Amino acid sequence: MPRPEMIRWSEDGAAVELLDPRSLPETPSQLRLESAAEVAQLLRARGVVGQGLREVAAALGFAVELARHRQLAQTAFRHKLEEGYEVLRQTQPGDPGLFRTLERLRRTATRLRGEAPAAVADAVRGEASAVLEEAGAAGRRLGEHGLELLGRRATVLVHGRGWELTDALAPLFAAHDAGRRIRVFVTEGRPTLTGSRVSAWELQRGGVPVAVVTDAAAGLLMAQRRVELVLLGARHVALNGDVAAPIGAYTLAVLAAHHGIPAYAAAPAAAVDPQYATGAALPLGTCEPKQVRRGFGRATAPDSVPVFPPALDVTAAGMLAGLITDRGLFRPPRDAAPAALAGAEPPGRE
Amino acid sequence: MPRPEMIRWSEDGAAVELLDPRSLPETPSQLRLESAAEVAQLLRARGVVGQGLREVAAALGFAVELARHRQLAQTAFRHKLEEGYEVLRQTQPGDPGLFRTLERLRRTATRLRGEAPAAVADAVRGEASAVLEEAGAAGRRLGEHGLELLGRRATVLVHGRGWELTDALAPLFAAHDAGRRIRVFVTEGRPTLTGSRVSAWELQRGGVPVAVVTDAAAGLLMAQRRVELVLLGARHVALNGDVAAPIGAYTLAVLAAHHGIPAYAAAPAAAVDPQYATGAALPLGTCEPKQVRRGFGRATAPDSVPVFPPALDVTAAGMLAGLITDRGLFRPPRDAAPAALAGAEPPGRE
Repeated sequence: MPRPEMIRWSEDGAAVELLDPRSLPETPSQLRLESAAEVAQLLRARGVVGQGLREVAAALGFAVELARHRQLAQTAFRHKLEEGYEVLRQTQPGDPGLFRTLERLRRTATRLRGEAPAAVADAVRGEASAVLEEAGAAGRRLGEHGLELLGRRATVLVHGRGWELTDALAPLFAAHDAGRRIRVFVTEGRPTLTGSRVSAWELQRGGVPVAVVTDAAAGLLMAQRRVELVLLGARHVALNGDVAAPIGAYTLAVLAAHHGIPAYAAAPAAAVDPQYATGAALPLGTCEPKQVRRGFGRATAPDSVPVFPPALDVTAAGMLAGLITDRGLFRPPRDAAPAALAGAEPPGRE
Repeated sequence: MPRPEMIRWSEDGAAVELLDPRSLPETPSQLRLESAAEVAQLLRARGVVGQGLREVAAALGFAVELARHRQLAQTAFRHKLEEGYEVLRQTQPGDPGLFRTLERLRRTATRLRGEAPAAVADAVRGEASAVLEEAGAAGRRLGEHGLELLGRRATVLVHGRGWELTDALAPLFAAHDAGRRIRVFVTEGRPTLTGSRVSAWELQRGGVPVAVVTDAAAGLLMAQRRVELVLLGARHVALNGDVAAPIGAYTLAVLAAHHGIPAYAAAPAAAVDPQYATGAALPLGTCEPKQVRRGFGRATAPDSVPVFPPALDVTAAGMLAGLITDRGLFRPPRDAAPAALAGAEPPGRE
């Protein structure tokens, strides 16, 4: 079974359809987003849509916005184009990936300056479709590169997404599609529960045998030799190969090292950030204390109790067996540090 | 501030008052239990009341039951006594601690055979009060023994209760009462969330500075050198000092060893079980998959997804810096293995 689609064009082509992660796993439902403003609103809902998906959603949202205005006169259309660009850009002004994706679409429009708005809208839509397809292809490439780590049978513990579409689940779907007999344990991923809510649903929906394990149970799982490989979905990669990944990844890397189990990080080449020579300064972000204190609706901690806030933790390259990217598998010391990938365009920009 | 009372006699003396752990932290409320049957019903609600508290609750419940029947004639009274004994015993037929506690009260009644039922009921009540007081005293002793591990200032990560009343929180309350400046991080303790729901509430209520940390974040906490000592509340102790503790304890022990931070287990001497020479066969129990899939009403994992079920994990004595009990601190190799404590009576039975 193929991997479930997280994002796509609506059948009538007038909207972006996005699987609402907040609806998982209980009542999986598609959001229908019909304007840049609607997409932007979703992107601003903190933590709802992850890194890779965010860029694709912005691209599709921008194209949908231009299509809405295809009947306008040139000047009015250009005005709407700039407005749509800004509203999407402002959802995360400091994000280079989002900036590059939106710039790519705007350049397409700029090249057609003078053409009828309808033609410009169609061209931008074509470019947005390319962004969508390329992200899917990058995910499949990451999956293929990860495949060589898995035998005909394998039991894998996976933690964190980092990037959606090009993430740590990709090698699992690739292995499943290749007929390998794999079994997957997925960590809950407190406090967001992305593992049990989203990844477990996605793997199950895709036909991959999966069980959920609480984050704290990973030690016992390894002590009982129930996993052969650990996959960590990374958010940021430093030039030396250190990674920042959803909190708990470092704990799993220490456990894996203690038990002699190889742990690999997975991230697209675009996650290698030339700003960071090592992991020491990689941003750890913050989770919402509410996710810890009443993440399930009911209070699960006193409302006034402080919460240790980081959303990510850092794992040194030396703790990892390697890094799986859409541009290849990096295994130190055999391979160069992922610095070779620094400044890579987002997936699909090759 | 003293430690909050988890269990006590009601003011009118006719009932057991027990802080309902299910009500924490949102609306702390006392359960008023007026018969052996009511206490038994609570004890049968799986996982609601922990080991140490269970024995004390059974003792108080037995005494309350006899008081209800103090006006009966001898034969009818003896019949009620046996009935009450059985209903409480059957809540956990294989538990030696519960058996010993109930036997202790029944022996008190047997010694007074021939006396008026009212006199027997009063004597059993006195013995139950002794059980309650001794459990509190054992907790305080465990606290005192743990105190020597803490400096004038200390930052401690605590995980798991294992036993209530004589548990890993005791050294923290002892240190706080002794005027030490301690700060505590408490793990959430998925899937039961006993750490964030109960321990965090209890520490905060007792005036101990506390913050909650998700289980998976413990690695980062240690990498950032934010904790100096790890305390693990153990449920069972093997003769060689291996411990079974709420799941995640082993993960924390591995992390602590990796970071050179001492990790101690805490449990009453009564937790040393002579059935088990080492930790290899210690029972791991099972959690309820529902606590993982929809612990708080909302679904947090697909309903059909399998869940890795152990409720406890085992940490080898060699991974621990020592074991804190109500009968002393055991630090191998300086001290003998806790086998010396094997077969110890429940706390307070000295």
